[in-house]
Amino acid sequence: MEKVSFSPLSRLAICGGTHGNEMSGVYMVRELQKLKLDRKGSVSITTVLTNPRAVDACRRYMETDLNRCFTDDLLSAPITDSTPYELRRACELNTQLGPKGSREAVDLLCDIHNTTSNMGICLIFYSSDWIALHIYKYLQRKITSAPVKAILLDTTSSEAYSLESVGKHGFTMEVGPQPNGVLRADIFNMVKEAVDLLIEWLQKFNSGSVFEGGEVEAFTPVRSVDYPRDPTTNDITAAIHPELQDNDYTLLHAGNPVFQSFSGETVEHEGEDLYPVFVNECAYYEKKIAFHLTKKITLTLPSISIKQD
Amino acid sequence: MEKVSFSPLSRLAICGGTHGNEMSGVYMVRELQKLKLDRKGSVSITTVLTNPRAVDACRRYMETDLNRCFTDDLLSAPITDSTPYELRRACELNTQLGPKGSREAVDLLCDIHNTTSNMGICLIFYSSDWIALHIYKYLQRKITSAPVKAILLDTTSSEAYSLESVGKHGFTMEVGPQPNGVLRADIFNMVKEAVDLLIEWLQKFNSGSVFEGGEVEAFTPVRSVDYPRDPTTNDITAAIHPELQDNDYTLLHAGNPVFQSFSGETVEHEGEDLYPVFVNECAYYEKKIAFHLTKKITLTLPSISIKQD
Repeated sequence: MEKVSFSPLSRLAICGGTHGNEMSGVYMVRELQKLKLDRKGSVSITTVLTNPRAVDACRRYMETDLNRCFTDDLLSAPITDSTPYELRRACELNTQLGPKGSREAVDLLCDIHNTTSNMGICLIFYSSDWIALHIYKYLQRKITSAPVKAILLDTTSSEAYSLESVGKHGFTMEVGPQPNGVLRADIFNMVKEAVDLLIEWLQKFNSGSVFEGGEVEAFTPVRSVDYPRDPTTNDITAAIHPELQDNDYTLLHAGNPVFQSFSGETVEHEGEDLYPVFVNECAYYEKKIAFHLTKKITLTLPSISIKQD
Repeated sequence: MEKVSFSPLSRLAICGGTHGNEMSGVYMVRELQKLKLDRKGSVSITTVLTNPRAVDACRRYMETDLNRCFTDDLLSAPITDSTPYELRRACELNTQLGPKGSREAVDLLCDIHNTTSNMGICLIFYSSDWIALHIYKYLQRKITSAPVKAILLDTTSSEAYSLESVGKHGFTMEVGPQPNGVLRADIFNMVKEAVDLLIEWLQKFNSGSVFEGGEVEAFTPVRSVDYPRDPTTNDITAAIHPELQDNDYTLLHAGNPVFQSFSGETVEHEGEDLYPVFVNECAYYEKKIAFHLTKKITLTLPSISIKQD
């Protein structure tokens, strides 16, 4: 594969609090703001607490999920009296960090999230972006305190609904396991290490380092699985099985236990072998998702470097 | 010590959902209701989902903490248009399961809670109650899958603010660690085992078994410790130190690390040796409590049995 070159990545945005009860991002952003870390070498850094009302209320969101508001359609809809708070806030963030798809958008946007699932550090990409994937490769090589994994979605920029789609490049950083509303030092330290390495990578890139290509693994979604439910009340009738709980990324074969009903029966995985992710994520109960099933793919990255003008 | 005898304990109440986002109690109560388990031998069982609105909203409470509403003063205050939902609900529960302090009250009330702290099964008693302490002794001997501990408070029945004070005897069963809004099978199975053993104990007691006296250990609160905070913003500036996180009940000596600031400094425990409990409990952030410090005490229980008329 040939080497691919890119313009300098001088404008970085670090965001937290997009979900107001996911504390690592909230405190990471506050700490960066306290340090007044608005530049490091070649990189200017913007830090944003993105959903301040939800942070104050320690809730995921006030009226609607902010991290579902960044499609082109939603960002271009007229604002009226009945527009939810989060959609107004999305437009403000699009003005501050974008506009999405424009030359003025920040070069890289990293939005920090937590999950109650045992996901370690998981970067989520909405498309195959060589810059973001090279950063993933770098973090995976440098961080030894936790697994570093990636989930690759396949959406167009226009349809991408999450905050990081506002940047020219970007990713969601999901870190767990951490309960909503709780800040764990071990998880905070993982986020801090990842943010430091992200800034280090950008500085190296801007100073002309060539990042060699190679292979990386990522997980791509196949389908979601809901909890077993009572057909009349719709209440869930089983919990994630203890053998699946905390075992994100571990291949499920047909017959492996996935749920344990409250009366003690086991429900087994059916069909093809797949990798579960976001197992028992708190916020997915309302979305009727017990876990996602994914395939593992291998991506071949080209070498990349800064464009020499 | 002489043997102490008591009237039969024929009326048991199992409650859950007092905090609407603590899922073990919610699903334990729903499961018992589904099984229509309203009697087991000599024991009639009432199951109550105590804060249904908070359960539906998956929030700790709607207007005020239900588990702080059961003092004599609050239960006897007149209900007006401005009375919070939870206080109205407390009065309903007092009618259904009490009235508190009366002959009509249920014989034993067990209210199931979850904590994000690594507390295993922790029974909380508001006074030295031989019945409740003997049940604790029984659970501690029978349950091997998790530590079974007890916290003993020292309040009068009149001042006791939590639901179980409505029963003639009772305790709060705190089980963790479990994030709010999440149901873990391992934690659910612990609760189920404890509830089964509680019913088994009551049946044995009612059928004339003598429970031999002996010693049990309990933790009694000394003081609470708040997070370090920024004096101007009041934001917390440190998380529970990784060496303290998940180490509830482990004796803290002066010099042991208790907090790690976001910039990396360690804050140490000062003063006398004490045992931390409720370390990094989610709901205590708003109460400005990072953990409680307790002393370990030994209680000598008399032998107990049913009163022979």
